[in-house]
Amino acid sequence: MSDSTSFHMTPDEFRRQGRAVVDWIADYYERVETLPVMARVQPGEIRAALDPAPPQRGEPFETILADMEKLMPGITHWQSPNFFAFFPANTSGPSILGELISAGLGVQGMLWATSPACTELETHVLDWVADALGLPAKFKSNSAGGGMIQDSASSAVLCALLAARERASDNQINERGGNDKLVAYASTQTHSSLEKAMGIAGLGRKNLRLIAVDETFALRVDELERQIQADRAAGLAPFFVCATVGTTSSNAMDPIAAIGARCQQEKLWLHIDAAMSGTAALCPEFRALQNGVEFADSYSFDPHKWMFTNFDCDCFFVADRAALIKALSILPEYLRNQATESGAVIDYRDWHVPLGRRFRALKLWFVLRYYGIEGLRHHVRAHVALAQNFAEQIRQSENFELVAPPPLNLVCFRHVNGDAFNRQLLERLNASGRIYLTHTLLNDQYTLRFCVGQNNTQARHVDAAWRLIQQTAQEIESENA
Amino acid sequence: MSDSTSFHMTPDEFRRQGRAVVDWIADYYERVETLPVMARVQPGEIRAALDPAPPQRGEPFETILADMEKLMPGITHWQSPNFFAFFPANTSGPSILGELISAGLGVQGMLWATSPACTELETHVLDWVADALGLPAKFKSNSAGGGMIQDSASSAVLCALLAARERASDNQINERGGNDKLVAYASTQTHSSLEKAMGIAGLGRKNLRLIAVDETFALRVDELERQIQADRAAGLAPFFVCATVGTTSSNAMDPIAAIGARCQQEKLWLHIDAAMSGTAALCPEFRALQNGVEFADSYSFDPHKWMFTNFDCDCFFVADRAALIKALSILPEYLRNQATESGAVIDYRDWHVPLGRRFRALKLWFVLRYYGIEGLRHHVRAHVALAQNFAEQIRQSENFELVAPPPLNLVCFRHVNGDAFNRQLLERLNASGRIYLTHTLLNDQYTLRFCVGQNNTQARHVDAAWRLIQQTAQEIESENA
Repeated sequence: MSDSTSFHMTPDEFRRQGRAVVDWIADYYERVETLPVMARVQPGEIRAALDPAPPQRGEPFETILADMEKLMPGITHWQSPNFFAFFPANTSGPSILGELISAGLGVQGMLWATSPACTELETHVLDWVADALGLPAKFKSNSAGGGMIQDSASSAVLCALLAARERASDNQINERGGNDKLVAYASTQTHSSLEKAMGIAGLGRKNLRLIAVDETFALRVDELERQIQADRAAGLAPFFVCATVGTTSSNAMDPIAAIGARCQQEKLWLHIDAAMSGTAALCPEFRALQNGVEFADSYSFDPHKWMFTNFDCDCFFVADRAALIKALSILPEYLRNQATESGAVIDYRDWHVPLGRRFRALKLWFVLRYYGIEGLRHHVRAHVALAQNFAEQIRQSENFELVAPPPLNLVCFRHVNGDAFNRQLLERLNASGRIYLTHTLLNDQYTLRFCVGQNNTQARHVDAAWRLIQQTAQEIESENA
Repeated sequence: MSDSTSFHMTPDEFRRQGRAVVDWIADYYERVETLPVMARVQPGEIRAALDPAPPQRGEPFETILADMEKLMPGITHWQSPNFFAFFPANTSGPSILGELISAGLGVQGMLWATSPACTELETHVLDWVADALGLPAKFKSNSAGGGMIQDSASSAVLCALLAARERASDNQINERGGNDKLVAYASTQTHSSLEKAMGIAGLGRKNLRLIAVDETFALRVDELERQIQADRAAGLAPFFVCATVGTTSSNAMDPIAAIGARCQQEKLWLHIDAAMSGTAALCPEFRALQNGVEFADSYSFDPHKWMFTNFDCDCFFVADRAALIKALSILPEYLRNQATESGAVIDYRDWHVPLGRRFRALKLWFVLRYYGIEGLRHHVRAHVALAQNFAEQIRQSENFELVAPPPLNLVCFRHVNGDAFNRQLLERLNASGRIYLTHTLLNDQYTLRFCVGQNNTQARHVDAAWRLIQQTAQEIESENA
């Protein structure tokens, strides 16, 4: 119970309940493998178990914690080793504990002055990350650029777009609004967040040109070039290209170096979205996938996907931080302070949409230190090897086929029996509760995606998944026979 | 140490280290009152204590946790009972533990299907909050509207602006970009995030009209009316008004009912920013401050300010969720699923900028249940009483004066000796480490802000602060004499 005079949880009760919650989480990880991966509830089922009105009087913490069981049937287990859907959204022990300290300290990092350690650790760890991924020196804080944590790759691409928009319009859109001429470019496979950002930024979704891809689903530079020239001839103003290291649909790798050379020549802002696959650059042998990254004006990847750091944690780097700040800064009197006016500090509120900021660098610092680069590389390599082995089994199978080349840890495949069969196969696999996959469309074909990236996934899980996929396909075939 | 073959933290190690972190946090709360509130480090001082390169090999968790001490001199203690700066950014035991479970489960709530409990609890708790604050039924999920959690009031006002922009332009700006005519309105005291959002949305910061305020720093409806008519006469298209319940500078209360009636007549989107002061509506006796809320198209307030729920947790309500979704939805194939297509569920990714989402409703659910409405009201009333008592002492003082009426828990005051003196006073108070205040400009006068809202603040802290303020002013006066 709370302190009866203050209603607050005393430090002593926090110790006791904190231990109970830590144990609850450890218990969860000990059983997560046994739980149905995808939640099986119907819409409204979870709400129906909850009290319709907020409690007038406080309740004991034990009652609240026990009620987690009312929610569990509605949890899809992203931390299950049998989760192969979407891209992963990993967490890990050190990350969870970093997040816990962040919640405990409860500091606001909107300005350097409002908690200098929050800003400085973020700058520091982002410099570490730039080094660990072999990113160009222009993304480090001792250059004209630097890195920061955004909530997501969606917000990062919006901020890149805003910085590019203002550079291209000489800060006129920020001031006066409107967009007569600016057009942006990306492949047909680029993440939908760019189209969303074009709308948000008032640039118009129709002013995003979706460029055709080659047989690997990578952007065709000849088509990009042709479209840029056509737009210039029409009096429009090309200003922004988004290239992807590992598209969401099929993990396709856009040819960064060729796109980058074109952007440099045409003076276009190049943003690189490496949301999941950027993590692979931890390993020297995979770094070639982003050759040409030195051309980029901005770059983002998500440690909350494949680097064991819980959501939200997107690392966003820019080469020209002044361009970003120009697009996003506002300085009302109540935020003025000596440190800001000295120019000697970073105020991250001017680097993104929100004003307030959590101390998100802590969890990333904890993860980098606990695993070390060595430990992170170990898992990237293990996941890639498991996915490549899975792909090899698809290649050797008579009934399944690869639909796209698998450069890293995502395998896109389908059963030879066509779309309806594959849709039925996916539904049955997910309904089994034993694994969770998602789908996409490639060349208009319904395609299953198998992404190996959950940090608890081992060879036995991938092997069991492949057996289940084969068995389930056989069952459907015999039912249809 | 980590599991030597996997580098992961085992559940058993998580139990042990989790307890250490819980104890670290409890220890922190036991000593936070004794720490200098505002960090005293110089720019770069924290970074200088950190390893320049990321570790190649993993380190024991004990080493990492011990290194928190390297950061502590750079922490400004927002959870100190002597924190009176800005608006508060509270956390509490149940909130920290809710955040911990969220990090432990590590689920993604971008779609209902990706973890139904994450979406349903959020909808459910936001309905609770609407009831607890006496908000109109149109903001509840069984109407055409509904509530959701955003990271901040800045993001909320951006989303409100985007929904209004698309309603006013018949979805043309989203599609085609540009802004010829749309103009928005707010008072000169409105939070800077609205101006920032006008720029982000491509509407142009100059198309935000900042309306003059009265002697209480509240928006003048006659001036609003005059400006709207002038803009219409100039062929422009008024579309959006932001009214504030408790401005950041001085906690001024815009006349919501009068503004709302005007908006209804003129068919303008009315957004209400109640970032801190919305919490006061928990108490029936303070609810009149937002009379007229039934006119609003959207409303936001921050439990992460004054409702004991750690950042980030902004509650954002809209009356017409279809307008919001129209502005922000995108549906690529890889996110399609049966639940979404059934129309029976909410997919919150279409309600805000990012795609991914943390399970933020947990901490809010924990706070509402642990305190109960009764416990939350207790603290709101206590903080208001402490601030009103502080204001009364200012009124009775010969050397200090109130600069604005204090409707709730923020007191704006100054020493009679003028701007330079007040600036010196603030710097010396903050340098003492014993309290932390911030300043603003009101009527071009340098003004000290004293906000009582930290959940551990009691009468003795406010009394000590008032004594320190008087003593420090006397010291400066005698030095200058």
